[in-house]
Amino acid sequence: MNNRILILAIFLGSFFSINAQNQEAYIDFVNPLVGTKNMGHTYPGATVPFGMVQLSAETDTVQYEDNGQYNGDVYKYCSGYQYDDKTIVGFSHTHFSGTGHSDLGDFLVMPTVGELKLNPGTSKNPESGYRSRFSHDNELAEPAYYKVLLDDYNILAEHTATNRVGFHQYTFPESDNSHIILDLISGIYNHKEKNVWTFVRVENDTLITGYRQTNGWARTKTVYFAMVFSKPFYQYGHKKYDNSIYKGFWRKFDETKNFPEMAGENIRAYFDFKTKKDEKIKIKFALSSVSTEGAVKNLKYETPNWDFEKVKAESQEVWNKELSKVEVEMMNKKDKETFYTALYHSFLGPITYMDIDGAYRGLDQNIHYAKDFTNYTIFSLWDTYRALHPLFNIIQPKRNADMVKSMLAHYNQSVHKMLPVWSHYANENWCMIGYHSVPVIADALIKGNLKDMDSKDLLEACVNTSQYKPYDGLEYYMQKGFVPDDKNSSSVSKTLEYAYDDWCIAQIANKINNKDVAAEYQKRSQYFENVYDEKIGFMRPKLSDGTWKKDFNTLSTHGQGFIEGNAWNYSLYVPHQPKQMIEMMGGEKKFVQHLDSLFTMHIDDKHFEGTEDITRDGIIGNYVHGNEPGHHIPYLYNWTNTPYKTQERVRMIMQTMYSNTVDGLCGNDDAGQMSAWYVFSALGFYPVCPGSDQYAIGSPLVKSAKINLENGNQLIIDVRNQKPENVYIEKVLINGVEIKKNYLLHSDIVKGGRIIFYMSSNIPK
Amino acid sequence: MNNRILILAIFLGSFFSINAQNQEAYIDFVNPLVGTKNMGHTYPGATVPFGMVQLSAETDTVQYEDNGQYNGDVYKYCSGYQYDDKTIVGFSHTHFSGTGHSDLGDFLVMPTVGELKLNPGTSKNPESGYRSRFSHDNELAEPAYYKVLLDDYNILAEHTATNRVGFHQYTFPESDNSHIILDLISGIYNHKEKNVWTFVRVENDTLITGYRQTNGWARTKTVYFAMVFSKPFYQYGHKKYDNSIYKGFWRKFDETKNFPEMAGENIRAYFDFKTKKDEKIKIKFALSSVSTEGAVKNLKYETPNWDFEKVKAESQEVWNKELSKVEVEMMNKKDKETFYTALYHSFLGPITYMDIDGAYRGLDQNIHYAKDFTNYTIFSLWDTYRALHPLFNIIQPKRNADMVKSMLAHYNQSVHKMLPVWSHYANENWCMIGYHSVPVIADALIKGNLKDMDSKDLLEACVNTSQYKPYDGLEYYMQKGFVPDDKNSSSVSKTLEYAYDDWCIAQIANKINNKDVAAEYQKRSQYFENVYDEKIGFMRPKLSDGTWKKDFNTLSTHGQGFIEGNAWNYSLYVPHQPKQMIEMMGGEKKFVQHLDSLFTMHIDDKHFEGTEDITRDGIIGNYVHGNEPGHHIPYLYNWTNTPYKTQERVRMIMQTMYSNTVDGLCGNDDAGQMSAWYVFSALGFYPVCPGSDQYAIGSPLVKSAKINLENGNQLIIDVRNQKPENVYIEKVLINGVEIKKNYLLHSDIVKGGRIIFYMSSNIPK
Repeated sequence: MNNRILILAIFLGSFFSINAQNQEAYIDFVNPLVGTKNMGHTYPGATVPFGMVQLSAETDTVQYEDNGQYNGDVYKYCSGYQYDDKTIVGFSHTHFSGTGHSDLGDFLVMPTVGELKLNPGTSKNPESGYRSRFSHDNELAEPAYYKVLLDDYNILAEHTATNRVGFHQYTFPESDNSHIILDLISGIYNHKEKNVWTFVRVENDTLITGYRQTNGWARTKTVYFAMVFSKPFYQYGHKKYDNSIYKGFWRKFDETKNFPEMAGENIRAYFDFKTKKDEKIKIKFALSSVSTEGAVKNLKYETPNWDFEKVKAESQEVWNKELSKVEVEMMNKKDKETFYTALYHSFLGPITYMDIDGAYRGLDQNIHYAKDFTNYTIFSLWDTYRALHPLFNIIQPKRNADMVKSMLAHYNQSVHKMLPVWSHYANENWCMIGYHSVPVIADALIKGNLKDMDSKDLLEACVNTSQYKPYDGLEYYMQKGFVPDDKNSSSVSKTLEYAYDDWCIAQIANKINNKDVAAEYQKRSQYFENVYDEKIGFMRPKLSDGTWKKDFNTLSTHGQGFIEGNAWNYSLYVPHQPKQMIEMMGGEKKFVQHLDSLFTMHIDDKHFEGTEDITRDGIIGNYVHGNEPGHHIPYLYNWTNTPYKTQERVRMIMQTMYSNTVDGLCGNDDAGQMSAWYVFSALGFYPVCPGSDQYAIGSPLVKSAKINLENGNQLIIDVRNQKPENVYIEKVLINGVEIKKNYLLHSDIVKGGRIIFYMSSNIPK
Repeated sequence: MNNRILILAIFLGSFFSINAQNQEAYIDFVNPLVGTKNMGHTYPGATVPFGMVQLSAETDTVQYEDNGQYNGDVYKYCSGYQYDDKTIVGFSHTHFSGTGHSDLGDFLVMPTVGELKLNPGTSKNPESGYRSRFSHDNELAEPAYYKVLLDDYNILAEHTATNRVGFHQYTFPESDNSHIILDLISGIYNHKEKNVWTFVRVENDTLITGYRQTNGWARTKTVYFAMVFSKPFYQYGHKKYDNSIYKGFWRKFDETKNFPEMAGENIRAYFDFKTKKDEKIKIKFALSSVSTEGAVKNLKYETPNWDFEKVKAESQEVWNKELSKVEVEMMNKKDKETFYTALYHSFLGPITYMDIDGAYRGLDQNIHYAKDFTNYTIFSLWDTYRALHPLFNIIQPKRNADMVKSMLAHYNQSVHKMLPVWSHYANENWCMIGYHSVPVIADALIKGNLKDMDSKDLLEACVNTSQYKPYDGLEYYMQKGFVPDDKNSSSVSKTLEYAYDDWCIAQIANKINNKDVAAEYQKRSQYFENVYDEKIGFMRPKLSDGTWKKDFNTLSTHGQGFIEGNAWNYSLYVPHQPKQMIEMMGGEKKFVQHLDSLFTMHIDDKHFEGTEDITRDGIIGNYVHGNEPGHHIPYLYNWTNTPYKTQERVRMIMQTMYSNTVDGLCGNDDAGQMSAWYVFSALGFYPVCPGSDQYAIGSPLVKSAKINLENGNQLIIDVRNQKPENVYIEKVLINGVEIKKNYLLHSDIVKGGRIIFYMSSNIPK
């Protein structure tokens, strides 16, 4: 060690030891309420990183009017909570974070006092049911902690969570008429007959077990629970709201009261207590995908005692530890809060999907055991392959490898022999397009994070997935080199995404020297050319007979061969061959004009009407940041002679599309993809093409960052002259050496060291 | 060994070696069609002793008219088959034998040719659906083998079975349009919305797996299956008849055809083949209560090859072996067929309820493992405690001990902490009254068949069961010494049966010297006295205030405090204290008059109208043999000075209420109880009071019998001067010693040897 390095080490040591002392403070910069207003679809409730339980308040998920009509609002309630609502219906244990489709909301618990009401009531008439008014003044959301005062009952609700257990603490007023309601009907979905079956056993005067089986977005989903009270109830009962029968029951008991086994499609149970003033009733509520036995095991293992404060402290410490993987300084507190909230949202999914003994329900509905890995579910892959999984390849490589193992387990259980498209509690819900498990696998493999897996198995799974002919126009794609628009909708999007996924397969094949497969998929990866209409300069739907779709509208998102995007955006989707794409589209100059126009043109709202998740909030010109297909677009200037425009755009997007406020997300967070985009961009680079080892350089927003890598290395990102107006990069030094390229390699990151960005307000020459 | 015994041994050896050579012939004396006409509620299909699979034809279980109205006929179809019907709907895999309540009928398979029809059609218009006409001329039912020609399709259907696998063999005509239909809607029950969920995976072009979850008589029942074809189908599909959704499905596939995962409430699937003339398509169909994985395991283990004839031969050999436990010679072939058919029906349940690895679904819906025992379900205990389980204590002691272990497992899983009342596929259906697990346990314990169980555990389970206050008037019974009729229906029947069950608990307590419990339950066992109205000489409903029910009708079975019986019959229900009962009822003379009147009086049908299972067929005077409460009554003359009347009645009942014909049962076989009554009575004795070690002597119908005991001993029953008219017993010798009592001890039986009955046509002095 020479002196210079020694001094540097001492300097760094002291610099970061300050941070280390402050480590527990990272949760202070997270606001779980960010994204709960408008379209973010995040939830404010208590959870741990990648936790199975998401215990969160639901504000108005009752999607039916008094007349039984669906009110069309379920999209607003994908995560169960909307900031503008005035009432809380209750607290349930499973929630998506940021999805554009609704489901979950299992096991709603609500404490009340006074007359027992078993229906939730409506937002207009909250006193008609068990729900309560509340005020944000009496609400606090932190990582792994949430509290709110339920005004109608003067009950303080507090929640924390471990991986598989939601921990409730309710401070009651004095009452001989205190209740805990367990609503097994309540759920999130726009299908009134969602419940298939529910089953509840009152094992003793504190322990309840059971399950709920639903037919929702997941066609066949069952979640088991074990719920234990800190204090015995003195009576209980339930009401059934369905036609299911218990004929064998004869005339022996009064089934509705103190009868310890309840079952049916639609059940609401209650448990009655007498409470003193400020008496706390606590509930530990464990989940399992396997059985009530599994839930009881999870409960006993994860929460052996009743110390709410201790569990809260431990779970918050877990959050601090995860958040400290990236230690940043920002130019202001708002940005720092935005950053750590984005990091928090990046760590909410995929979620753990196995019991503490490794058992989990598989796609075949059988019980499987995860050997030497954590099994995960909720893979919203069309969203998350872009930036979320690449982010994990840097700061969560072990988890990401386990996610790949989970995908491979899914593949092995799949009767279609396909890797997950959208993996959802032992279901494939087929949401969105492509087979984007492939880029997740390719990216992790290329980046060296799958060393304990057999690459041949991975390749085989990817190849079989990409050759399952009945899937979504794939047979046509394989025959013709494109998905014909007269045969399958969103034909251009599918063609483009298959081509990119196929390029990823070629990378995997190359990695293990399988030249035949590599060549085959290299060829398929060029199929994007088949849907480019050079006459108009756009990707365009092609028909079976090889002619182009007539009456083609490049602005509309409806029926033009695209999904969640239009031709202006989707034509730029060739992440694996940007140079070739630029040539194809007429060369750099024309391409830069296209990009400039995209960001500046005025586009009428009508083009986006009815397209999920596209609102003015998430739009810049015709560029839609609220949806994913364009997330790489701001970085495409890097392949032209105007990379400074990437720097401008990226900086502008970070500052206008993200914030530390409840409306701080410009669209669905999409299971963390929106947030992961921000985390990458704030650090100064972005994975335009997962499956390659390159990150396009943008414009860092951090002043400094330390990435604590799992390999023990540390990467310092040191941004000099960082100011709001200094959005342009003058030069970049990696470990003291200036680089002449506008991208970083994955090896530049994982070997650690220091990357220095010199910022300037001047457009670089 | 002295000479006499040696000669005897040689004689016996030669006598029975002939039988041994003929051993395989026992199945020739079984006619599974007995009881399929009228009320027997037996099924003709293929099964092995105590087998999990009952693969049997269903003739008209569609209980709804074209207008959707319930036609009220489901009671006829408790087992799915009625002899008078002209069409077969298909062949399903689970059936009750002889119950008075309907359920099961899971997984109906039907082969057809020609136009694909997915609805079953109606008996009036069979061609409107997939069902087929058939003729009994082309039908053959044997133990573990059934065949029938399906006239509408010219398909020969043949079935055999192992414990957990139904083995189908269909001989098709030449057709490009041959189908195997798998109807997951079809089932037996009078509730149109019985199906809760079904799930089917086409694993490959021969293997199908899945499950069916129902809300029928069992509130929450799930059965898993694995179905394998001997030949690949070339296409398949399904139709869904419900509102369940697969929204995640988007627009990717045509779900109805060749899509390998189906799910929903109500599904009918089909598999298409091209068949040559006389081509056989075979199906092996395995069940599991655990998972499809379990079903596949069962399938592979039990039926490793495709040799239908071999499986049939092996399963029939299993039957021969079981039937040879009692080797009888009768006076004529009719009686021999009646006997072996009764023995066959006695061995159809309880059924095996675990996978080959011991795993089974428990009452708590968790998966349990039977350690060192076979777990059984379908305990119709109100029926079977009387004679079926006592019969097992002689000829199936190992199985009966396992049944007790199954009951104890049920108890341990029960949230009520009760032994089974009616155990039904991991459900308690609470059917009928009492807690008759207790006499089954007491009888097995007293007879020395529970040597490897801890009697304390058994006593605890019995005591807890008998003290579960919310159960069926039990709290009143414990408080007042009777069930008040104003508080709980069938109050007298319950009081009487609780009292008898309590006597059994006292026997268990005595056995382990628990004097407190013995005394307590001895006291409870006398509570029958509390419902005897000496003024009228009948048991009579008592009200809470201690007064008798007004307007009491001793003949009616409706609302008089009894169930499946009237005061005339039920007043005789004190099996544990017949002497005391006789005294109470006015002494021997008056009692004999009561019995005589019972068997000879004319009673108007109106008294029985609407009472299940009581029809003219099963009635002698006012005595109802078609139901159970009176089964011991013909033997009660034994406690008077006229035991010959028992001999007369019993012989008469055997000859008039049983036969070898399709209408050979006078009422529901009730899970084997009716048949077990016959087996006992034909052998010459009957367990009037299970829990005691005594058997009342009746009038044997056999000429000779050899009971091959599991302890290696053999008991010969040698009936001298046996003729139809010689119904009276002159004397009885046990191993050469004439007995002066009119009962046998259990030890007389299990130590083996020879019991000689000398018969006569003269009423003994």
